[in-house]
This record gives sequence, C-alpha cells and structure tokens, in this order.
Amino acid sequence: MKAEILAVGTELLLGDILNTNAQYLAKELAALGIEVYYQTVVGDNPKRLEETLYHAFSRADLVITTGGLGPTEDDLTKETAAKYFGEPLILDEKALAQIQVFFDRIGRTMTENNKKQAFVPEHNSVVMYNANGTAPGIIIEKDGKIIIMLPGPPKEVVPMFENQAKPYLANKQEFTFISRILRVASVGESAMEEMVKDLIDAQTNPTIAPYAKEGEALLRITAKAKDEEEANRLIDPVAVALKERLGKSVYAEGETNMETEVAKLLLAQKKTIAVAESCTGGEISSQLVRFPGISEVFLEGCVTYTNDAKMKRLGVSAQTLEKFGAVSEETAKEMAEGIARTSGSTIGIATTGVAGPDGGTDEKPVGLVYIGIYNNGAVEARGFHFAGNRNKIRERATFQALDWLRRKLQYEK
Amino acid sequence: MKAEILAVGTELLLGDILNTNAQYLAKELAALGIEVYYQTVVGDNPKRLEETLYHAFSRADLVITTGGLGPTEDDLTKETAAKYFGEPLILDEKALAQIQVFFDRIGRTMTENNKKQAFVPEHNSVVMYNANGTAPGIIIEKDGKIIIMLPGPPKEVVPMFENQAKPYLANKQEFTFISRILRVASVGESAMEEMVKDLIDAQTNPTIAPYAKEGEALLRITAKAKDEEEANRLIDPVAVALKERLGKSVYAEGETNMETEVAKLLLAQKKTIAVAESCTGGEISSQLVRFPGISEVFLEGCVTYTNDAKMKRLGVSAQTLEKFGAVSEETAKEMAEGIARTSGSTIGIATTGVAGPDGGTDEKPVGLVYIGIYNNGAVEARGFHFAGNRNKIRERATFQALDWLRRKLQYEK
Repeated sequence: MKAEILAVGTELLLGDILNTNAQYLAKELAALGIEVYYQTVVGDNPKRLEETLYHAFSRADLVITTGGLGPTEDDLTKETAAKYFGEPLILDEKALAQIQVFFDRIGRTMTENNKKQAFVPEHNSVVMYNANGTAPGIIIEKDGKIIIMLPGPPKEVVPMFENQAKPYLANKQEFTFISRILRVASVGESAMEEMVKDLIDAQTNPTIAPYAKEGEALLRITAKAKDEEEANRLIDPVAVALKERLGKSVYAEGETNMETEVAKLLLAQKKTIAVAESCTGGEISSQLVRFPGISEVFLEGCVTYTNDAKMKRLGVSAQTLEKFGAVSEETAKEMAEGIARTSGSTIGIATTGVAGPDGGTDEKPVGLVYIGIYNNGAVEARGFHFAGNRNKIRERATFQALDWLRRKLQYEK
Repeated sequence: MKAEILAVGTELLLGDILNTNAQYLAKELAALGIEVYYQTVVGDNPKRLEETLYHAFSRADLVITTGGLGPTEDDLTKETAAKYFGEPLILDEKALAQIQVFFDRIGRTMTENNKKQAFVPEHNSVVMYNANGTAPGIIIEKDGKIIIMLPGPPKEVVPMFENQAKPYLANKQEFTFISRILRVASVGESAMEEMVKDLIDAQTNPTIAPYAKEGEALLRITAKAKDEEEANRLIDPVAVALKERLGKSVYAEGETNMETEVAKLLLAQKKTIAVAESCTGGEISSQLVRFPGISEVFLEGCVTYTNDAKMKRLGVSAQTLEKFGAVSEETAKEMAEGIARTSGSTIGIATTGVAGPDGGTDEKPVGLVYIGIYNNGAVEARGFHFAGNRNKIRERATFQALDWLRRKLQYEK
C-alpha cells in the first residue's frame, strides 16, 4: 500500500505551527510497513485543497489527512473528500451527542456551527469518535482507495490514530513492523556503531539501526513479523547479543530517560540521595524531582555557586578551595561527601566545572567538569570534558553524573 | 511571488527527523510578503524528485528546496534542478576550496565524493558558500522562475538563508513585513485578547495577532512597509498603546524569556539572589544559572525537599511546619527569609507546593503552590493554583515565581 500524508491548514503554511503530526504519522506508517512517498501541506483554500487531494489519489492508495475538520466555513477536508468519493454527508446522531458530551465536560455551550462537525458520509465510511476534541475523524474506503481524516491538534491526532486508525490499517497488512529501542549512554553514536557493526551487517530480519539523540545513542531493532509475538521472538536474541557487546552502556529499553531510570533504581534499592551542584545549577535536582514519588529517597539539593556556600553548606575546606580551586577533583569529592553528611543521605552526588562562556583558563578550560559521588562511606571523583555552549555543557554534565550513578547502583550494589 | 517549499530526504518520509526547516522558511517567506501555497516532502528517489520539482514549478514562481545536496549518489536535488533549467554543471574552484577549508577545520580528510558538491551551474546562478557544512547552496534564476537550494541540516539552513537567500529575495519585493513581539506574563491568551480586542479590531497596518506559548501569551504586531524604518514608525505607537493597556504584564519585547529578563534586572540593579525550592526542585536555580555571568549575583540555591532540610538549611521553625504545614504561606515566607539570611543575599525567593500526582488533600489540593519573596528586609508570600500534570505545575510555578520577582524589580525598585 502506498500512502501520502496531507496536512491541511494555513497556519502551517505561515509557519505558525510545526508539522509534528507528519513525523508522527510517518513513523507509524513505516512501522505498519506502509510506504509513504510524499508529504504535502496545503492551506484552507477550497480549490487548492481539492487539486491536492485529487493529485494525491492519482499516486497513492491511502491518503491520511490532518486538519480542516473544524466547525468554520474554512474547514473543508471532509466536504472535499466526500466529493471525491461521491458520498453525500448526513447527520450522525452519535457524533452530535459526543460533541455535546465534550462541550458539557469542558463547561462550554455548543454553537450551531459545531453541528457541521457531526455530518458524515452515509456509506463506505467509519466514524472515529473523538474523546479529546469536537471533530470526529472519518475513514472512507471505496474502489481501492482509502482516506483517513484526522483532526489537527496532536493531542487529538495521536490517540485517534493509535486506537482507531492504526487497527484499521494493521488489519489490511500481512506483516507488521515492530521495533524495540536500546538506549546507550556515554558512548558516542559512531563509537557504538563501530562496536556492533558486524552484528548490524549480519542482520536482515530484524534489522538494527543506530541513531543519535541529544546526549545518548540509540539502537532500533525492527522485526518484520505477522504479529507481536513473532516479532518479539525475532528481536529477543538480537537484543541479548547487542547488550552483551555494549555491556553496562545499555541503560534501558524503550521510551524512558536517564533520570527516570536512576529514580527507579534509588527507590528499588531504598537509597536516599542528596545533590550538591555548582555548574549544573540545580538541573540534577530538578530532573530527579520530575519523578513522582521521588520524595521517598530524595532528601535535598544545594546549589553552592559561591565558594562561601561550598564551605558553609557542605563543609568544603578553605584549604582545598585555595590549593586545588573550586573546579577540581578534591572539591568535587568534598562536595559529594559534604552533602551526604549534612543531609544524612546514603548517596551524595556533586558537580563543579566551568560552563562558560567566560572563566576558562589553559589549565581549566570551558567544558571541564568534575563529578563526585559519595556512596555509603566511599567517595570518588572524575574529571570530564564536555563540548558545546554553556547549556549543552550543563546538560551533558547532568546526564553524565546521572549515568555514573546509574552504573554504580546497577553494577556495584 | 508565489512560492513552494520542497524538502528532499527519505529520513523525513520515515519520520526519523522533524521538518523544522519548513516552519522556519514558511515564517521567513511570510515576513518577506511571499505567499507559500504548498509545502512538499519527497524522498531521495530520482523519478519522484523530478516529477515533484516540475509539478512545483507548474504552480509556483519560486521553489525553495532543503536537502539532497550531499556527496552521495542519492543526493540529486542540484542535478534535477540543473536539468529543469537546462544549465550544465561545472566545477567551481572557490566552492571546492571552501569544502577543503571546512574539512581542515574539523580535522578530517575530504573524500573524492565531496568533489561532486563543488559542481554548480555555469550561468544564471549564484553560489551560496557554506561556512557550517560541506554543501554550498545554489540559486538559479531564469525565465521568471527561481530555485533556491539549501542544504538539509537546520544549522546550515538558517545562516545560509538569513545571510544569502533572504537579501536576494528581499531585493525583489516591493514591500516587506516586519513583526515585533510583545511578551505577556501571568495573563491567559483569551483574557489578554479581551483586554485589547478593540485595538486589534481597529488595526489594519500594522496588524495585531495574539497567540499562546507555553506559560505566556504573545502579541505579534506586523507592519507592511517598504523598509524597516517605515515599519518601526508604524509599529511604535501601536506597541505603546498595547503596553499602556496591558501594563506590568508586558515583560519584554522580542526573542527572550522570563529567566533572561530577571537575570538582566538583577545584574543591572546589582542585587544578589538566593533560592529556596521545594516543589520546583531546583528548576528556578537551574533557569537562572542558564544566563552567562549570573555568578555575579546568584549566590546559591537550596532544594529543601524534606522538613528537616527546611529547618536545618533555612531555619524554618518546627512550630510553623507543625501548625501551618510545609505547604503554607507562613512556610514560604520563612523559607524566603531564611535563604536570604543564611546566604547573605539581598533577595530570597522560595516555593513550596503540592506538585502531585499524589499528596493532595481537600484543603491542599494538587497544584497549590505558595511563593515567597524576601526583598531587602520585607517578606511576602502568595498562594497560587496551577493546572496540569506534575511537571506542568512545576514549570508554571517556576515561571510565576520569576514573574513576580520581575514585577518587584521593575516596579517596586
């Protein structure tokens, strides 16, 4: 099946919004094994919309539209599709009731205009009721052509596609493509690729694709299979082989992130933590606090930006600051130990570095960051050099600090 | 002039990357007064690329492409455009030298493939040399049609368009559209619209458009004028009228954000600050520390998550915590006063609240956050109720705390 993604909306042509729906749908269709050859954006203009839709059907079997299902006269996607398929629109009482329910829920009065949204083709169609907005989505299938019309807002598009359009399409596909993602920390994309190149080259089903995301590298294992069970059977041994090769660098599978994994480990091991930050400026604390329930193990954080604060809050010695400087292994160790001691936590984690853009020297250049970890009596510190601007350096130091802690929690116990 | 934006790249069709170039170019073209009727994405397929380019020129005078200028055999944008315009490609020594310079700078060896990137049309074209990558961009103009070919990576697209393609296009436009943005804090989009509705309705040039961005509301004033000077003459009185109407809620003009404005005010007024956070978990500190040079005024932050930490670090009294609870006006005041006193700062700012998802009660529901500000001897606290999930509540509390401080710095002196 060949597909085309067609976004309708003048706000896209003006650059007021980013077309994230196209990326989402493209990924989903690829996973279903449906080839997408074109993506198009057209404005709320009747003539151009009609031309674009007819042109799309001249080269595709399936057209997925987003937008143009609203209550105003400008919203013409449904009317244009109904014309293409020669299917008149009639009032759908259930759709109208659902729109009413939606308005009741948000405490507003339904306008006469919204009634237009409840008109659907009489035949050859499926109505996708919308729990997150007023416009129902519609599928029309006739003479080997399918249109799937979705609303515009991503928060309506995603659940409607996931729960209603995707099963409809999956039903038509002999095979499905199922992916699993391995998340790799503190190894660059090209270094990772080098480490598993022979495994990548040897694989045809599942395939292995490396890619880079801010601060981490990912491996996507994709199986072509008739169902999820078969896909998992194909993926499992490949995931095991990759994990063996990459060792401790694989920090998780699937949709998650480093702070979530660290928070889970702390909670599972019932280890309390406190954080002392200089250059990261509160970012480590803030990321850990994202996790609901973290209050069971997270005791406190100190953003000790000045030397005074490092001494007074954490007990870093004046001598250490004098002799080695605030950005040093020694200071990082005393900060980590100091925050654990003063807060009474099992684990203390600390950062001190030069985030720039100023303040760098030959000896201590911008990007140099020391990370210290105190864990139940023992303290260690290591120096890292991060590239990028001030905020990239801070982000990378935060990620690295959490990854080092993750490795300790996972492997040193 | 009618334009079409054409992105070339199979990675877009697979959803591996988001087409941010299209949004950027759409905005820029709108500002130049050039109408965009379509955006298209096509893969690295010679036949489909050719058809798409020819189809684009059947309905547009200007086509702007991104991608497909790389060194591999798959990269065919330039070759396809050269064919459309009937312009043979020849080696451009200057482009070749620039590519060599780029490789020298990143310390890599240029491959034979890269030589392909230095071929440009012999006539009717302008080469846009690329300081941020290997592929030069190219403009071809002939018989009333223009193609502007840009590379794929946004970090190459933006400077090349800004410095080379935009002046080329501006030169052809009789009018230009220039916008100024007013940033409005702590007033919702619809409330703001209500407050200035008569001004919006009365304007034709410049126009006023309200829109919402995470946590703030924006007003875009757009003038159609022959140059920037005339545009500013049109915009100035409208900006003044809007600011009069919205008062202290207008926190800045242009591309900036709340933490930047607060940091600038602190630095300009040479007022030192320290932060005590509970529910925001370090986010206020982390945002302030984003600003380079903040170390002159930012002394420290304490993420006092436990009652113990609130007492020990900030001197919040056990009695206050017992009688009013950790989430209370009284605790917020003692936290703000405590962090200022213990750090020796002029200003102390504090947050304490219920971020959820658990921990809410009838009396103190999820979303209730108290913010305290100590400023040079006086302390105040206020309760707010924020909607959204745990992280939205934390973000909104951070923004609100900074906005309240901004108002104090700007208007109370």
